[in-house]
Amino acid sequence: MPNLATAPTPIETETHPSRYRHWRLAVAGDVATLTMAVEQDGGQRPGYELKLNSYDLGVDVELADAVQRLVFEHPEVRCVVVTGGLDRVFCAGANIHMLSTSTHGFKVNFCKYTNETRLYIEDASESSGKRFLAALNGTASGGGYELALACDRILLVDDKSSAVSFPELPLLGVLPGTGGLTRLADKRKIRRDLGDVFNTIAEGIKGKRAVQWRLVDRLAPLSRWDEVVGEEARALASSVALPGRGEARGVELAPLAVEHQGDRLSYSQVELAFDRAARTARLTLTLPSAAGPADGAGAFAQGSAWWFFRLFRELDHALLHLRLNEPATGLVTVRVAGDPAVALAVDALFEASDHWFVMEVKHFVKRVLKRLENSARSFYAVGDEGTAFAGTFLELALACDRFYLLNDPDAPVQVGVSAASAGMYPMANGLTRLATRFLGTPGAAEAVLEHQGELFDAATADELGLATFAPDSIDWEDELRLALEERASFSPDALTGMEQNLRFAGPETLETKIFGRLSAWQNWIFQRPNAVGERGALKSYGTPERPELDYNRT
Amino acid sequence: MPNLATAPTPIETETHPSRYRHWRLAVAGDVATLTMAVEQDGGQRPGYELKLNSYDLGVDVELADAVQRLVFEHPEVRCVVVTGGLDRVFCAGANIHMLSTSTHGFKVNFCKYTNETRLYIEDASESSGKRFLAALNGTASGGGYELALACDRILLVDDKSSAVSFPELPLLGVLPGTGGLTRLADKRKIRRDLGDVFNTIAEGIKGKRAVQWRLVDRLAPLSRWDEVVGEEARALASSVALPGRGEARGVELAPLAVEHQGDRLSYSQVELAFDRAARTARLTLTLPSAAGPADGAGAFAQGSAWWFFRLFRELDHALLHLRLNEPATGLVTVRVAGDPAVALAVDALFEASDHWFVMEVKHFVKRVLKRLENSARSFYAVGDEGTAFAGTFLELALACDRFYLLNDPDAPVQVGVSAASAGMYPMANGLTRLATRFLGTPGAAEAVLEHQGELFDAATADELGLATFAPDSIDWEDELRLALEERASFSPDALTGMEQNLRFAGPETLETKIFGRLSAWQNWIFQRPNAVGERGALKSYGTPERPELDYNRT
Repeated sequence: MPNLATAPTPIETETHPSRYRHWRLAVAGDVATLTMAVEQDGGQRPGYELKLNSYDLGVDVELADAVQRLVFEHPEVRCVVVTGGLDRVFCAGANIHMLSTSTHGFKVNFCKYTNETRLYIEDASESSGKRFLAALNGTASGGGYELALACDRILLVDDKSSAVSFPELPLLGVLPGTGGLTRLADKRKIRRDLGDVFNTIAEGIKGKRAVQWRLVDRLAPLSRWDEVVGEEARALASSVALPGRGEARGVELAPLAVEHQGDRLSYSQVELAFDRAARTARLTLTLPSAAGPADGAGAFAQGSAWWFFRLFRELDHALLHLRLNEPATGLVTVRVAGDPAVALAVDALFEASDHWFVMEVKHFVKRVLKRLENSARSFYAVGDEGTAFAGTFLELALACDRFYLLNDPDAPVQVGVSAASAGMYPMANGLTRLATRFLGTPGAAEAVLEHQGELFDAATADELGLATFAPDSIDWEDELRLALEERASFSPDALTGMEQNLRFAGPETLETKIFGRLSAWQNWIFQRPNAVGERGALKSYGTPERPELDYNRT
Repeated sequence: MPNLATAPTPIETETHPSRYRHWRLAVAGDVATLTMAVEQDGGQRPGYELKLNSYDLGVDVELADAVQRLVFEHPEVRCVVVTGGLDRVFCAGANIHMLSTSTHGFKVNFCKYTNETRLYIEDASESSGKRFLAALNGTASGGGYELALACDRILLVDDKSSAVSFPELPLLGVLPGTGGLTRLADKRKIRRDLGDVFNTIAEGIKGKRAVQWRLVDRLAPLSRWDEVVGEEARALASSVALPGRGEARGVELAPLAVEHQGDRLSYSQVELAFDRAARTARLTLTLPSAAGPADGAGAFAQGSAWWFFRLFRELDHALLHLRLNEPATGLVTVRVAGDPAVALAVDALFEASDHWFVMEVKHFVKRVLKRLENSARSFYAVGDEGTAFAGTFLELALACDRFYLLNDPDAPVQVGVSAASAGMYPMANGLTRLATRFLGTPGAAEAVLEHQGELFDAATADELGLATFAPDSIDWEDELRLALEERASFSPDALTGMEQNLRFAGPETLETKIFGRLSAWQNWIFQRPNAVGERGALKSYGTPERPELDYNRT
């Protein structure tokens, strides 16, 4: 089995519409159309054919890129039609041969990425005023239907054969792993017994029954397809108010400048340095010496060159690189080098501006912080001399599993709180990071927020409950070294399970259910011989062999 | 490895204080003391020694029995002190050698049962007015600390050595699997970074730091231990009002009469008949011909002989038998034979009575219905001629994955709704089964409840959305036969994952987090080579070999 994760050519998650092989993005007025027409021979690696609009990670990377560009480059778009470019097929879901020949780790990360992309579609709807119409011109199976479920409205062609379906359980012995079960139960709120039936009918449900069960919102005959799609798209577009965007010019997303040099991944403001023997990496974000633009118009004028936006785009890319190409790195130390006043100044801009671009950058940073929290790696924020964990970067520290803070009058370290911690970047559970951290000590979050706009020393930060450990210079190096060595020695599986359980206390949401519950069950099933054994259902699919199952229940 | 699940001697979950080997139950006034003193050689099977108050399923069966008896046989008890009977040790948690030599399925079911027992302690506190004091007379590790976390208050001896700890991750490469992570994060609301640290310190946290981190509520020096335990117990007892119970006589729980006859398990009103070739079982509950006692006092006079209580005690026992001794049975059809008017009459008694015993029976039935929903088996309710899915038994149908209802005027089947569906038996998610079922169609639950106290025909039940399928006599047999054959052919792992995701829509609670999220991660880890491989951490523990881990993260 090819071990993708350690393949010599790193998996790349940056692309551009000019290089798309599987999607077409067309914008006409305030309606965009995203057409999926997967190139059969365009798989990310050899060994499988992407038939029937089935997809692999490379296809989803293009989709994620398109959603991102719609948000930034096309602020005027109010409705995005997602449809299929093949005859009678919308999308057959994740490619089964790709899955059955992938490592466990790659399968899990593939599912995680596609889940994030679906959530980004939902965030574009909720936060960026874009409504998504799934125009199912043919059958939508598995991940194809999951993509439709991420849209605001689902239209299905009524041609006597096109259906929506989840064939994973009956055909492959796995679950619909891209949020399908959670969106069935919690987004569309399908009756649980009908959901049970739907999940066991490989050929799916079509026509009137699909509407009656609320699996789709509307049917349209083939003869009136284009007309109804247009009508629905107009209705969705009209339902959206886009103050300040209707006439806005977009912000082009310039390519990232990234350099791979052996044990180091370098961007303009982000560096990820690997210590492979120690199974750790050192992530350093570097702030500029000056805060940059003073208002929303200034930030907009700089566009994707605005240092703050560029830094988080680079961080996002680095996190994906870590997940997909560096599985053996279990622990990442996170440092922010620079002047904490620069960090606070950016957040003051956020507070003062309602410019659409500034809002979008805020939502983008929100998604990057979530990406970090959803990464199956340990993160330790390290605040020593010259670091600037202030404002948005304090949020970054709070997103980490631990925060080591040097507390020594001879080597002063400043920490700062801003509006960034008061609600700018809600976690997946819907709470702020301070509220989640201090669930058990009401008042402690408020006590931190009283310092908004201030810089304070490590001793104060420690008293406020922000630091996990705050040793002085004498203990600092030893304590940190031992902490890193210890963490790197633990079972990576147990760490992943623990982190997933501790990172999101409090309320659950669609999002936490997908990553905390559905993904965990899918991880389990992806490991079981009934799916991935030599005669497991996932392995046997498409071969003349019937799967051999161990029918014992756990 | 001995496959416990198919061992010739079935695992038994019924016991009696006179047969306890590991716990002592003493009642003095309104304070009871449960003392854990595990018999080292008293393991449920050979191959491990229960040192240091470590436990196996047999130990937990006694604890569950004691909690149950406290509720029914000792209504006057307001505080239960849970303490250890060994010197300087409270409890070392689940026995590691037992775990490392158990099958995956047994490990998962063992964890599920211990989780249910901990939740029953919490339910006795919330619903039955009993407060639990964990009096940790020595170190509480792993499952030992998890037991303490299930109590209302935790007292730790301050003797310079006794600590609370979760050594699972650093020593065994697994998670604290009995709700520990969830109760840390969501019940005691420990700060996530401190929780992260706590979970990686094998020796645990003791003394003042344990109080500062809120891992325990109070310390007491060895010299004043008995005094402080008594003081704390009195304070907890005084905080409870027990209207109608203070002077009440208890209800003795008579032994169940169960007969094993090859493919059949028979009780007085419950029968579980196995078709092993088909991998299915037929569960039949039989109602008496008359409703029995008309009020609370009458029910109390009958005690555990009251048919309704006895029936659910038998069902509970049958469900545990199914889980622990019949792993190959994946699908259970559920029938309720009898007169639906008898079922409705019981629920009228529940509505009219506030007798403590009736309240306790109600909570017991609530727990049995949850036990069914937490069983990793498919359940189909089958309503054909002579069945009585009414009142509490309609709830049973709604707890199943599907409800097949015969809809034929020539073979009339009656269904009935009562207060049982209006809130008597909340699900783990805190909602009623009707509210969960009809999350997506507000009004549909209310439409059903308008029929409270009525019996109606299958056509009406179908219109109200209660039936999954309602075929007529012509299609009935074929449809049911095909449905059973199909279900039994699917991957049991994928079914378990799907059912766990569909059964509990809507809000999440401590309970759904434990079973839906924490358990799923633990299942996954229990399957990974890093834990259970020949050189995995769980397997290597206690041997001279150091574990060999694959450090790749997923």
